[in-house]
Parts: sequence; structure tokens; C-alpha cells
Amino acid sequence: MRIFTPIRAESVVSLGEQRLITEIKRWLGAASPAAPFGIGDDCAVVPSSGKPMLITTDPVIYGQHFDDSVPARAVGAKLLKRNLSDIAAMGGKPVAAVVSLAIAADTSTQWLREFYLGLAAAAHTFKVKIVGGDVTQGPAGFFGAFLTLHGEAVGERVVTRGGAMPGDRIYVTGTLGGSLLGHHFKFTPRLAEGAWLARRSEVCAMMDVSDGLAKDLDSLTPKGLAPALCESAIPISAAARKCAVQTKQTPLFHALGDGEDYELLVVVCYRVDVVKFERAWARKFPRVRLTKIGTFAKRDEMPGGAVRLLDYSGYEHLR
Amino acid sequence: MRIFTPIRAESVVSLGEQRLITEIKRWLGAASPAAPFGIGDDCAVVPSSGKPMLITTDPVIYGQHFDDSVPARAVGAKLLKRNLSDIAAMGGKPVAAVVSLAIAADTSTQWLREFYLGLAAAAHTFKVKIVGGDVTQGPAGFFGAFLTLHGEAVGERVVTRGGAMPGDRIYVTGTLGGSLLGHHFKFTPRLAEGAWLARRSEVCAMMDVSDGLAKDLDSLTPKGLAPALCESAIPISAAARKCAVQTKQTPLFHALGDGEDYELLVVVCYRVDVVKFERAWARKFPRVRLTKIGTFAKRDEMPGGAVRLLDYSGYEHLR
Repeated sequence: MRIFTPIRAESVVSLGEQRLITEIKRWLGAASPAAPFGIGDDCAVVPSSGKPMLITTDPVIYGQHFDDSVPARAVGAKLLKRNLSDIAAMGGKPVAAVVSLAIAADTSTQWLREFYLGLAAAAHTFKVKIVGGDVTQGPAGFFGAFLTLHGEAVGERVVTRGGAMPGDRIYVTGTLGGSLLGHHFKFTPRLAEGAWLARRSEVCAMMDVSDGLAKDLDSLTPKGLAPALCESAIPISAAARKCAVQTKQTPLFHALGDGEDYELLVVVCYRVDVVKFERAWARKFPRVRLTKIGTFAKRDEMPGGAVRLLDYSGYEHLR
Repeated sequence: MRIFTPIRAESVVSLGEQRLITEIKRWLGAASPAAPFGIGDDCAVVPSSGKPMLITTDPVIYGQHFDDSVPARAVGAKLLKRNLSDIAAMGGKPVAAVVSLAIAADTSTQWLREFYLGLAAAAHTFKVKIVGGDVTQGPAGFFGAFLTLHGEAVGERVVTRGGAMPGDRIYVTGTLGGSLLGHHFKFTPRLAEGAWLARRSEVCAMMDVSDGLAKDLDSLTPKGLAPALCESAIPISAAARKCAVQTKQTPLFHALGDGEDYELLVVVCYRVDVVKFERAWARKFPRVRLTKIGTFAKRDEMPGGAVRLLDYSGYEHLR
């Protein structure tokens, strides 16, 4: 059997990312535990003799996640930060990372040095140790760095994607959209915010927004429910507005569809006093917006005027 | 700055693997702890709130580690087994793995299914859970699967590469060489053996042989010492003899230089009763050879007749 196929219907791209991941879980069978212990949340939660361990993995690949216009230090920093965002999304604390390189023989030593200096600076900022790795030669023109990050819960629990109920409120940190104008190399993973939110009993589910709100909200939405977003509440970034001028789309299109926001999507229980919760947030993080953008409703009880999320699509990893 | 360079002297290949790894440690600076807590042993040892955690990472890449002649299931199994061998080499027990895929859009779904079935079967055999991963589109013609494996110590300690003393004996499990004739997809990682050896107080250092004995022995050899191997003691595999016929090299050339043996190299303390140790091994593993192949000597006290290891070279990952 050949590894690559000329027939599109027989290739992974015809499946698309979501169905491919579903298939992979099926192929793995009993080797793949249910989320959050296995595939399907921001991090895998691995029971250990001490605190539960969090594991997540994300790469940066030349031509896919960056090109020649991006400084090497920014690429190295981003490799760590995109993984840190996953740890933040479960309320965890990062501990240690390993980096597996697959690089063409003609990779510039000077470029690679800058890449590692950027990685080291980010590791210093976020108190992560780079404890190991691997170097393998890749084909001509290829550079991929695959980082796996390990963390642990800060408080009593880790916050998963599951558990939203009808009436629960949906919040998001910061502003959304337009990351392609530069934010996706400059963002700060919301580690402090994620750790604080995980300690608040009001919070019942959480994830990071990495593929666009419209797509990512799906993963927070239990069967039978749907997110009812209020259009005027969505915190649209200045960059999304700039993008909209260039693309002739609406700013909302970019806020809901653009990937790489690296903000936190937070579900707050319908029973709690949100005024108290919002005040506590504002005291702790006076400079970071936390916006209520909607609620979860039963599919057959959707309020009128909710944003039609099907009109927006997020980032598709296989195309 | 460009990521790839046409000037060989400015590329990573001109540095070579060992110097590149040394440079990476330097670039990482304080973010890179000393081995065994950081880069430089079979696994990184990460202190945790429970037992110390072991982490290792190794990929399989199309065109580099396998080609169209290898069944997809064997590739999937090998991805896990080469990482398991690193856990075995420190006397650990594997727990959980994540897999990051970078694959061309035209990767065959059927091939990938077979790959995951092979991975799942190996995970079942060795009691590992596949807890997460990532799928990213890679360039045309590219398939890389990057696995990071987590384990923990079985007994009181993990066995590192450091600590050999003059007079210590060097042992190796199984037979060496000729893995290219097929062994490197069929091997069984020495997990049971590694765990048993880590519990024996006679054992003071250990590693797995993955790049060829001549190269790997370097990592076990403290400054000022050298391995004094006895040529006639080297357990040469039948495959190494077959290779030698084809290549017109000696069988010893293949036994010392070929990569991917995935056997254990074991250092036994000079003070102990080796007869008792060898008898205990033979009772526990009657079907696995454990051969004393030499001793560590001071550099200026090398016995006559020792194998000249400089005449042999192992597998170089960047060429």
C-alpha cells in the first residue's frame, strides 16, 4: 500500500480535520481513553502518583505557521506560547517541554540559534524548562519543530471543555480577530488568568480560542444545546477592523472566523452571581477585558437575534 | 535572516549532530537543566509531586526512517517501540504518549489507518495509552509522526548514563548489527530487562544502543576513561554476518557500527560478584543473552588488544 494517493477521495484532506481525529480515536480503540484523559480537550489529563499531569503538543512548521517574513526569535517563542495557551485553558501550570526537530540539512545555524534564543526567552518568562528533544534530518526545504509541554493543575482541579448547561453564560477574554496582522506572534498566553479562573467555583468549562470562535465554540457545546451569542457583545479587535477594510468582509466575520486569538473561552454557571464574579475579575485583572458574549440555550429554545454561527467558519488544518 | 542557506559552512549539517546538540544546550542556557534532568540521557527526568517522570521523544519520517517497502503497521509500531527503548534504558515503565502528525494533504487514509492500527497494537502490548496529539498539514511528499512518551521509575531509582568507574564491566543484551535486514522493525524493546536491571544494585549505568555500539559507548564513558572491548566477546548477530557478505566489510564492522539495535548497554560495578549477577540474569531471562564485552580502563592504562573503536563509526543523524 502506498503512503500517498493521487485519488482525492482516498486522502486525508477529503476527510477533513474533525473527521480525521474521530477516525484516529476509532483506530486507536482501547489505547485511546475518553477525554479529558485522552484526545479531545486542550490537554490530556494523565493520572500520576502525584497531581494529575497535563500534556499538550503543537508544532511550528515552515510554510504552514510562519514564513521568511517572521523573525526566528518570534517563531521560537510562538512554539512554546501556543502550547502554553493549552495549559492555561485547563487552569494548569507549565513545568517542562521537549522539542523534536525535523530540519533540512541546509537549515541556517544562525537562524536556528535565533529560534532557540526566542524559545529560551519565552521559557524563562513562563518558568518552563526545556528538558530534552531530538534532531532528525528532514527533506530539503523542510523545517518543523514539534514541542510537547507538560504541566500540572495549580489548584484542586483542572477545567475541561465539558459540562455546560442551559442558561450558562459564555465569556471571552481580550478581543477577537485579525491575528494575521501580527498578534499571533506577539500574544501572551493567559496562564495567570486561566489559573485564577480554574480556582473560581463559578467557572464550569473552559478552552482557548485557537481556530476561531465560531469553530471552537462547537467543542464547548454539549449535545442538544447551542451557543446563543449577542452580536453587539462580541469584543472585536482593532486588527479585525483593519482586516475587514482589506478583505471587504465585516469585522464580525474576522472576530468569529480568524484563528490564533489565544484568548480564553469561559463558561460560567447559570446559578451564580455574575456581578460578583465580574467584579472579582476586574479587581484581579484590571487591564484584561472579560466579556459576556452570550449563553447556552436548548436547541429548540434559541432566542431570536442570536448570531448565526453557521455563516462563519474557523481555521481548517487540512485543506 | 533566511532559514535555509546555500553556504554549507553556515548550515547545521556542517556542525553535525553532536556539536549541534551542544550548541542547542548553550543557546537554551538556564532553560536547559543538566542531564539527567535535561538534554543528554535516554530520557529527561522531571521531578514531580509524585515519582520522578521520564520523558522521551522520537519521530518516524518518510524517506528517513522508512520507505514504501515497509508495511504501515510496522511503521506505527516502530514509532512507539523506539521511544519505549529509551524508557527501558533508564529502568522505567511507560505510561502515556502523544503523537503530533505533519502529513501531506494526499496522505492515504487507508495507509494512515494501518499505521494507527500498528501503533494501537504496540500500545496494547506494552500497556501505553495514546492520550493526545495534533494534526498539521505538511508539504507535498512529507509524512512525519512525532511521538513523546511519558513514563515513571519502576523501582527506587532511574539508571542514568553517568557514573562508570575504572574496572567496571560493560555488558550488552542480545546480539548486535545488521538491523537494516529487518530487525529494526521487528525488535522488542527491553522493558522487562531494563526494569529488572534498574533494581539490581550491581548496575551503575545504562543506555540503549540505537546509533551503533561504537558511537553510543561514548555517552557512557566518563572523562579520562575509555572502553576496552574484547573483540572475540562481541555478540555478532546473524544479520550482521549476512550484511558483511554483501558489503565486503567484516561482521564486526556491522556489529559495532550499525544503528537501531535497540539492545541495552549495561555498566556493572567493578566491586561486585559478577558470577552471582550473571546467574540471576540467566534465571530471570533464560532466552536473552547478556554478554560481558569489556571493561572501562583509564585512558593511559588501556590493555593491549582492545578493539580500536575509532576505526568504527555509528549512525550520524545529520549528513
